[in-house]
Amino acid sequence: MTGIRHLVSIDDLSLAEVMELFQRAREFGKDLRAWSHLCRGMISASLFYEPSTRTRLSFESAMLRLGGGVITAAEMKTSSAAKGESLADTVRVVGEGYADLIVLRHTSEGAARLAAENSSVPVINAGDGSHEHPTQTLCDLYTVWIEKERLEGIDVVLAGDLKHSRTIHSFAYALARFGANLICIPHQGFEMPNYVLARLKEEYGAQPLRVDASRLGEMAAESDAVYLTPQKPHQLSLFTDARGLRVDRVDAVYMTRPQTERHEVGDDKDSLEGYLTLGQEGMASEPLRNALLMHPLPRRDEISQEFDKDPRAMYFKQAARGVPVRMAILSVLMGRLELKARANENKKRLVEVVAGPNPCPNPTCISHTELRHVKANFTISSRSPLRAACGYCCRELPIAFVGCSTTRNFHSRDSAAAKQIRPDHLVFFRDEQEAESSGFVATGR
Amino acid sequence: MTGIRHLVSIDDLSLAEVMELFQRAREFGKDLRAWSHLCRGMISASLFYEPSTRTRLSFESAMLRLGGGVITAAEMKTSSAAKGESLADTVRVVGEGYADLIVLRHTSEGAARLAAENSSVPVINAGDGSHEHPTQTLCDLYTVWIEKERLEGIDVVLAGDLKHSRTIHSFAYALARFGANLICIPHQGFEMPNYVLARLKEEYGAQPLRVDASRLGEMAAESDAVYLTPQKPHQLSLFTDARGLRVDRVDAVYMTRPQTERHEVGDDKDSLEGYLTLGQEGMASEPLRNALLMHPLPRRDEISQEFDKDPRAMYFKQAARGVPVRMAILSVLMGRLELKARANENKKRLVEVVAGPNPCPNPTCISHTELRHVKANFTISSRSPLRAACGYCCRELPIAFVGCSTTRNFHSRDSAAAKQIRPDHLVFFRDEQEAESSGFVATGR
Amino acid sequence: MTGIRHLVSIDDLSLAEVMELFQRAREFGKDLRAWSHLCRGMISASLFYEPSTRTRLSFESAMLRLGGGVITAAEMKTSSAAKGESLADTVRVVGEGYADLIVLRHTSEGAARLAAENSSVPVINAGDGSHEHPTQTLCDLYTVWIEKERLEGIDVVLAGDLKHSRTIHSFAYALARFGANLICIPHQGFEMPNYVLARLKEEYGAQPLRVDASRLGEMAAESDAVYLTPQKPHQLSLFTDARGLRVDRVDAVYMTRPQTERHEVGDDKDSLEGYLTLGQEGMASEPLRNALLMHPLPRRDEISQEFDKDPRAMYFKQAARGVPVRMAILSVLMGRLELKARANENKKRLVEVVAGPNPCPNPTCISHTELRHVKANFTISSRSPLRAACGYCCRELPIAFVGCSTTRNFHSRDSAAAKQIRPDHLVFFRDEQEAESSGFVATGR
Repeated sequence: MTGIRHLVSIDDLSLAEVMELFQRAREFGKDLRAWSHLCRGMISASLFYEPSTRTRLSFESAMLRLGGGVITAAEMKTSSAAKGESLADTVRVVGEGYADLIVLRHTSEGAARLAAENSSVPVINAGDGSHEHPTQTLCDLYTVWIEKERLEGIDVVLAGDLKHSRTIHSFAYALARFGANLICIPHQGFEMPNYVLARLKEEYGAQPLRVDASRLGEMAAESDAVYLTPQKPHQLSLFTDARGLRVDRVDAVYMTRPQTERHEVGDDKDSLEGYLTLGQEGMASEPLRNALLMHPLPRRDEISQEFDKDPRAMYFKQAARGVPVRMAILSVLMGRLELKARANENKKRLVEVVAGPNPCPNPTCISHTELRHVKANFTISSRSPLRAACGYCCRELPIAFVGCSTTRNFHSRDSAAAKQIRPDHLVFFRDEQEAESSGFVATGR
Repeated sequence: MTGIRHLVSIDDLSLAEVMELFQRAREFGKDLRAWSHLCRGMISASLFYEPSTRTRLSFESAMLRLGGGVITAAEMKTSSAAKGESLADTVRVVGEGYADLIVLRHTSEGAARLAAENSSVPVINAGDGSHEHPTQTLCDLYTVWIEKERLEGIDVVLAGDLKHSRTIHSFAYALARFGANLICIPHQGFEMPNYVLARLKEEYGAQPLRVDASRLGEMAAESDAVYLTPQKPHQLSLFTDARGLRVDRVDAVYMTRPQTERHEVGDDKDSLEGYLTLGQEGMASEPLRNALLMHPLPRRDEISQEFDKDPRAMYFKQAARGVPVRMAILSVLMGRLELKARANENKKRLVEVVAGPNPCPNPTCISHTELRHVKANFTISSRSPLRAACGYCCRELPIAFVGCSTTRNFHSRDSAAAKQIRPDHLVFFRDEQEAESSGFVATGR
Repeated sequence: MTGIRHLVSIDDLSLAEVMELFQRAREFGKDLRAWSHLCRGMISASLFYEPSTRTRLSFESAMLRLGGGVITAAEMKTSSAAKGESLADTVRVVGEGYADLIVLRHTSEGAARLAAENSSVPVINAGDGSHEHPTQTLCDLYTVWIEKERLEGIDVVLAGDLKHSRTIHSFAYALARFGANLICIPHQGFEMPNYVLARLKEEYGAQPLRVDASRLGEMAAESDAVYLTPQKPHQLSLFTDARGLRVDRVDAVYMTRPQTERHEVGDDKDSLEGYLTLGQEGMASEPLRNALLMHPLPRRDEISQEFDKDPRAMYFKQAARGVPVRMAILSVLMGRLELKARANENKKRLVEVVAGPNPCPNPTCISHTELRHVKANFTISSRSPLRAACGYCCRELPIAFVGCSTTRNFHSRDSAAAKQIRPDHLVFFRDEQEAESSGFVATGR
């Protein structure tokens, strides 16, 4: 399966490739009906294990606009999956003859990666649980790029439920990667999670700063703002005076609905009562004068309908632009359009778990939910201290002890011995019991 | 959204336009496969909030025959709607980029009008609750027109459950509008409702006459027939002798199944036992010799299978003719075919409800079921006595008192003061309490 | 409806036609994208009363590859069927104008035959309950033919749950018809049913022989093998020595999963624990060196994933080859490709049941489940002793007494009087009571 290119994560694309895709999308967008020769004779398969009309229709429209055909399984849960078929087998069957490309939506994190590993045709991740939805992120970025003509150095407010929204997290990573600055104004109790902040810092060098957001009017009341700025803090676009940093100009506000379906025990549901509604009033302050108002839709009450005709309202445009962006992705992955930009070369290496239990702590990860044909693997983000993540769902592994699959000894995570184990011999344990019951022996006791 | 044409109600088309559509449909029907150039590159979206395989497949077949593409959401109830998305937002998203036309089926009356108000592409109503299903009516009319070569002055028997069938009501209005005469032979207890009779009279001048239907054989036993003849009673095609009016010749019999799923408390279900079954025997009497036997399908037992090969059996032809009729509608609304006939100019004016509660009495009207982004409105059918209907579901408003949104006074419906309120200041109340709790004050007390 | 050709059963095709189809499929398979002119302008309708993503997508992909369009009802159970529409009416409506061909999947045995009787366009049976799934069988045969270049005289092991698998039964009949030899190695308690063995013997002359399968290694432990060889026993490809017949060379192994969803009371479910898993080890014995390993998919654990890269692994190829095989079938049935081979001429004659109850003993047969528009019929497989089968589901009729519809007398099945009744006067009774309550009179008492 060499040479086949998938879109599982937005990190599968280099920054230069993203830019080239956007330029193509802009061409497509000028006249959506002018490209029906590009993928004539090709077939894409929509395999949706979780219904998602908007995403599915957007992909299918893009494929039809390119002159291709579509086969659709909108309710996979109720058909083959019910017969106990593995995702790996389904993808192999569909990819060997039925379709030239697979668009996959699944309830389990990491499903798209597993599919890509087993497919002989390109797989596009159209959302895998709460993990990634790269084409949504691309559409969001594309909208900002089209409107602001750049991504580096722009200031974007992320507002609302920053705790549970996959869309917000992915968008934040992508913005940071492109050198944009983030201003987090969460609804109280729904702050950006620490693991997201950590990744923003470690991978993109985003430094958190506490800022004064009082000039943002209504929105400001919500919370103390946190400002995250990547790599080059001298490019701060904030106003700095005696009192510190102040939000003075915003390029875009990204608002999300309360993700009530993902709320957990411990979330303060009553606090949703005061959830922000943005409209003419909320967007009236001076720093927001030229700010795009974005939303991934569906909205409930967090953006009032009266704002729809405001030129800053971007949410319907975001959705509409999904079609040309997806046209670009589809034609590239199906080999009908070549990207000249250099590909992303520093991808993380996947290492197979060779012994011990599956270390992934996420019960809905595909490495746990797929009963057959899946082998756990991981990526290493640092050796000292040792930190690793599930290769499928990217969730950080809880590591207390580390074993070596050849010596069958185990050591505490921070010991010198732990550091000397070769990556492909690493075995992870949450506690000593787990290590011992896996037949590993403690050393130095 | 000017210039975009929708098909929400059959009244959106003038009589001349209907005739022109029929002529086009007849051309299409000669060879369904000869028109694949007409809508090449166009995409229609089927948004079905209520499953309806027959209607959906008919539209999709028509679109494919025209060379276009189709994106389908057959189970909208279980997807975006579940996330709380408003119909208005869904339609905007689908219409801005995904599709060039929307075919909508919804459970709520008035849904198609709301969709049309929010769509930047044409919307076709493929059934909105128990309100309208204009393309079904057009197919029925088309069948009569193809077979009888005219609609004016023909005599059509409406038989069976005339109380609950949306199809029958729409067909009756359309026939009356075209100058056809109606002979109502309901199953006992399932008579044509008074509001339908009233509308037939008021809008199309249909006069009810009691007639002798004894010559119709089996069918006659069912009920005393009512004959409705529009506008020009001198064109009566009934035989008149000393004993009065007698049904002597019938052009078409339209039979419906008992709409048990719409039956209400108070309906006499036991009475269904003797429900008419039409077949060779029932269609044997002399006045029915050249009568088309029509049915909207699905049928249960009300037409026996042995009649299927009779040349008068039209029910499968009605269904088959749905494709060319829908091809004509699709190509006109998508701007690929121009109608030369004059458009319908006397459309009712919609007036917004500016104060007080939503006056619509229909709990399943979209003005009640859509939680977001809908503003109640109404049409006025007469000022003296004041009569108005919901602008979405067309149900007559229960008006006891009338307020003025500027003076905040309210008056009884038939008072002189009520008559002087400007239409766009009108507020409707069912009783004094409702008026008072809305902050209105009674005058003259 | 003369001249229209359906594919309800694989027996609808002659052996020569099957071969010609395979040759066409091989051409299609060389470049699936080179045939988009062949069915341009045609529409196929997928009517699925039971979800089956794999089969549906395979047909739809084939149709799109041929340049045609597809309309899909993937969940018929929840739509028109819910309104009580008969299958016959649905098929007539879809066939008269909506589509040029119908692909039908249904839960009731015999549904495809009923559909074909009522359709004005070709019907393809994509699975009717536990009855037939002819295109699946064709794909299986095609894979063997492509790999072994012949079907006559090859030796095929059928392994696993031979009791409940429709696929295995159909494949066995087809192999026997083509002159292949079958080696049955069932999981204990899940042996090939007697009625299948009887049909293999009666219709295709397959003689059962007990053989020594000890050379098959792991698989051999499973059971005493039964060898079925059709018509020409001198072509035995088994090794014969003093100890009898021994399996020495196998061309293909067809493995099935335990069909737990079809298991009945009395099946020993615990016995599934030792269900065979085939992999490198199970396929390691010398006689299996060149044996294809086939499986209809979805698999569970009966074939280990590590075998997937073995060149003998055929299961994904079977699925992939479904597309060119179905392209051949579609283009032939839609009249875009002509078969030159002679058609099957010795089809069984269907005789209508003119009196008495429906003699079919199968409660899920379409002759019982379709409430309207179905008339029971039967085929006679022998007169002495009298044996007959349901014309829809092919299940053998339980006959104890036989009546004559003209004399209204009844006789015991084996009596001389019974033999003299004309086929179209035959009435079947399970016992005397049934005969008497149908108004028939016993003679000779």
